[in-house]
Amino acid sequence: MRALLLIAHGSRRAASNDEVRELAKRLEGIGTDRFDKVVPAFLELADPDIPSGVGLCSEAGVKEVVVMPYFLSAGRHVAEDIPEELAKAAGRYPGVEIKLCGHIGQHPAMAGLLLQAAEDA
Amino acid sequence: MRALLLIAHGSRRAASNDEVRELAKRLEGIGTDRFDKVVPAFLELADPDIPSGVGLCSEAGVKEVVVMPYFLSAGRHVAEDIPEELAKAAGRYPGVEIKLCGHIGQHPAMAGLLLQAAEDA
Repeated sequence: MRALLLIAHGSRRAASNDEVRELAKRLEGIGTDRFDKVVPAFLELADPDIPSGVGLCSEAGVKEVVVMPYFLSAGRHVAEDIPEELAKAAGRYPGVEIKLCGHIGQHPAMAGLLLQAAEDA
Repeated sequence: MRALLLIAHGSRRAASNDEVRELAKRLEGIGTDRFDKVVPAFLELADPDIPSGVGLCSEAGVKEVVVMPYFLSAGRHVAEDIPEELAKAAGRYPGVEIKLCGHIGQHPAMAGLLLQAAEDA
């Protein structure tokens, strides 16, 4: 089994966290051919945190977790904090293979999405 | 003439602001059929600010500015601060029509981009 862990920063504003949870649900709905499960996790201010998110995958029998940082720029959170949290998770769940992707803002297709969204306006 | 104004939050980290400027340059390169110009602007901590970004468009002869908030969630910045800055800009540059798009995180195609990026990992 393979899961996608969608990591957002987390917000004091509950609606922002719910947006991320909804997005994870939508991803799970459309990504069934690639991921058995899509789990949202938060760096801070919301639950589950990153190790707990990996824990949820592990409990569901997932052996491979692909981690997608839902961040637009490569600051300290992306470069340091997320890898640190994943190291904790790896220590707790040694049976789970964790693969960290680049943050979504650096993906070459972001430019196309922005143009498409601007065109829809 | 028509321009795209790409609004990011702005960071104390120069490299993060440069990432946004590079992205705007890339958008200008691939979006020539839709936009004559793509200008980056920042809500805070970096230049140009939003009214100055609209000013750059105006000076270049742009009559329509499509504004894309490069934000993942709809917090206070998206809901209040960006519209306020755009209202200032509209007062300064009455000859420019300003069209505000929804923030990029709410676009339905974001889910597809995330799956694609996770697949590339």
